[in-house]
Amino acid sequence: MTRDLTIAEVRLTPILVADPPLLNTQGVHQPYTPRLIVEIVTADGTTGLGETYGDTKYLELARPLADRLPGRSVMDVNGLFGIDLAVDASRIEGQADAGGLRGVQTADKLRLSVLSAFEVACLDAQGKALGLPVHALLGGKVRDAVEYSAYLFYKWDRHPAGVPAEPDAWGAALDPAGVVEQARRLRERYGFGSFKLKGGVFPPDEEIAAVRALAAAFPGHPLRLDPNGAWSVETSLKVAQELGDVLEYLEDPTLGTPAMARVAAGTEVPLATNMCVTTFGEIEEAFTKGAVQVVLSDHHYWGGLRNTQHLAAICAAFGVGVSMHSNTHLGISLAAMTQVAATVPNLHHACDSHYPWQSEDVLTERIAFDGGRVAVSDAPGLGVELDRDELARLHRRWAEDDGSLRDRDDAAAMRTAEPDWRTPAMPRW
Amino acid sequence: MTRDLTIAEVRLTPILVADPPLLNTQGVHQPYTPRLIVEIVTADGTTGLGETYGDTKYLELARPLADRLPGRSVMDVNGLFGIDLAVDASRIEGQADAGGLRGVQTADKLRLSVLSAFEVACLDAQGKALGLPVHALLGGKVRDAVEYSAYLFYKWDRHPAGVPAEPDAWGAALDPAGVVEQARRLRERYGFGSFKLKGGVFPPDEEIAAVRALAAAFPGHPLRLDPNGAWSVETSLKVAQELGDVLEYLEDPTLGTPAMARVAAGTEVPLATNMCVTTFGEIEEAFTKGAVQVVLSDHHYWGGLRNTQHLAAICAAFGVGVSMHSNTHLGISLAAMTQVAATVPNLHHACDSHYPWQSEDVLTERIAFDGGRVAVSDAPGLGVELDRDELARLHRRWAEDDGSLRDRDDAAAMRTAEPDWRTPAMPRW
Repeated sequence: MTRDLTIAEVRLTPILVADPPLLNTQGVHQPYTPRLIVEIVTADGTTGLGETYGDTKYLELARPLADRLPGRSVMDVNGLFGIDLAVDASRIEGQADAGGLRGVQTADKLRLSVLSAFEVACLDAQGKALGLPVHALLGGKVRDAVEYSAYLFYKWDRHPAGVPAEPDAWGAALDPAGVVEQARRLRERYGFGSFKLKGGVFPPDEEIAAVRALAAAFPGHPLRLDPNGAWSVETSLKVAQELGDVLEYLEDPTLGTPAMARVAAGTEVPLATNMCVTTFGEIEEAFTKGAVQVVLSDHHYWGGLRNTQHLAAICAAFGVGVSMHSNTHLGISLAAMTQVAATVPNLHHACDSHYPWQSEDVLTERIAFDGGRVAVSDAPGLGVELDRDELARLHRRWAEDDGSLRDRDDAAAMRTAEPDWRTPAMPRW
Repeated sequence: MTRDLTIAEVRLTPILVADPPLLNTQGVHQPYTPRLIVEIVTADGTTGLGETYGDTKYLELARPLADRLPGRSVMDVNGLFGIDLAVDASRIEGQADAGGLRGVQTADKLRLSVLSAFEVACLDAQGKALGLPVHALLGGKVRDAVEYSAYLFYKWDRHPAGVPAEPDAWGAALDPAGVVEQARRLRERYGFGSFKLKGGVFPPDEEIAAVRALAAAFPGHPLRLDPNGAWSVETSLKVAQELGDVLEYLEDPTLGTPAMARVAAGTEVPLATNMCVTTFGEIEEAFTKGAVQVVLSDHHYWGGLRNTQHLAAICAAFGVGVSMHSNTHLGISLAAMTQVAATVPNLHHACDSHYPWQSEDVLTERIAFDGGRVAVSDAPGLGVELDRDELARLHRRWAEDDGSLRDRDDAAAMRTAEPDWRTPAMPRW
């Protein structure tokens, strides 16, 4: 074979992508959210794609990392994790993340969140060069389609007046009827069979009523509620008791492993998390305390697809379930999620994905949901192709931004509507 | 590309391979030990090699598994583990394994021990077909050579009179001076920098004296002692206290996780195991009890190279060290061990290998140790080639055996010298 898998060039393209006014406990999504698109080009011209968070602190790490790659082999993904990258400690803001509720922030997690996009891009390039799908590079798929759940949000019908934004066809959802209507439309359009409501927005009784309305509208369908740690232990136990008969699991009802362990000890409802177990270092305490029954992996902050497989193996060994978390992401990441999910035997819950909320993408063809499932592509690499015009357009949006949107901050976005808004103290209820 | 990675044929060749009269707590190695060589041939003529235990119970599972493979893709290694194989429960002999002290026996472990050879053969075939070393298929090497330790045994100078056997150039080692002399020769010939003594053969005081003699002869070199669970908790603690200043770790001093946890609680000497943690199901209890500080992985019974990587990731997450166990094996398995070890970042101890004791192999070229290390091959697949004449010769030995050697039984072998020998009750001391 005449291929040369040496990395010749790495292209980093920060973009701003439209996001609807979705509400969470910290505030509201910005009208545009930053993402970073990574292209790794080999000497023989193969290009691999990756995607991750695009906030400034990620870009600041991605650039020196990209500079280190030319000359290395695109096959050497384990070696990526040994590259010495200095993380600016001032970028670690403490327990809370201003955008997207990504759990505890550490230098290592920031590093892994950047590395993940490069690992995925290397795997995509490997697959394209070798004529193999990424799942084959990960040992092969054990299923032909990956199930996703409908990700329901309380939302406004539009971003605040005077804020530039894309049109939003979804309308408002601010009460049980609005949530059920949103669920119905998502199910109609994509075929989702399970539903997750992002909570922590309204007092628990209102969110309990919304879940009850979902249970009545979709009897027998798995339901989940995720207030992103907005509740006290007592409130969490009360909600678990009231919704125990309809919840598949309760996601991050309260913050921190000790509090989650107290909730877990008091209810039969399984607890899921993408906030108290987001790094390998957090696993031991959570698992030995029985604090979580399902880990929602996110290949972005766990450091890529191989680490996601390792995480799943750890969960299997400890009898903990595994599924997938999602933050605002585009099709490259959905393809990566689907490829790795296809290889995880113990994936027994539908994965989360924001993708239906993203009206823009950088692919030539959007990824389709059929019956709530994404078919596992057997095409080389991730099986997706970059739309360079669209990438350029979304990058121009980023380049022309005055800096106000380049670091996602849901509380700041909320202040455009409610000037006195502050990130709420936790627990809110 | 025109390659066709469909599995066209699977060849299974049981062999008997010469083994010296090495002593352990159950008895002595047979003069010939059974191994199984697996060849997986793809439609385009690529052949992948694997190796595992060759006792009858493994062969009985390997044959139906081999029959199921033609038509599948050699890329599909995750799928191997989903193949439904009925394990004959009568083959599970209970806690003790008659040959080789492989820890608890379960149907699943027996299945994985067979599957591992097929997983390795698939990876070898993949690598050869794609022009890539196996380590690249596992994410890439993070080191260029893998360190092994000298595996010291108490041994006789020859197998019992009247028993057919190959000549043995190593002589006897039955006391401290003999052990030191053996260590010196192994170090001279292969460059090993650390030493492991297989114990449980003589009363603890004699083995303590042997380790002390090693410490005097090789000051500063890491030393290990492994009595295969022959001691009580009290004896284990006494040995740990007496040898604490020179031991890198103490390996399986006593049987079972609860007893290991009691030893661990009473000593600063790290405890290693390849007996109480040999399956994913045994990890949780051992890790939460703090029973072991180093897991000695063995890709044969953990189910192959990807599972070995998962095990290493679990150990990393729980702050437990990782190294590699060895039972009698040939060069195919040494190549596989080296390839996967090269990819494990948290491998901080030299691996065990019986390979220097095996005068016979089925490779065209023996694998070399240089400075106690095996260089990580960058050749396609495992980087080894089958010697078909030698394979045929060792298979004839198996075919012509009257059945007495086809199932390794160290106690039975001991009875050829000591007719009254029975597998000792544990703890012996």
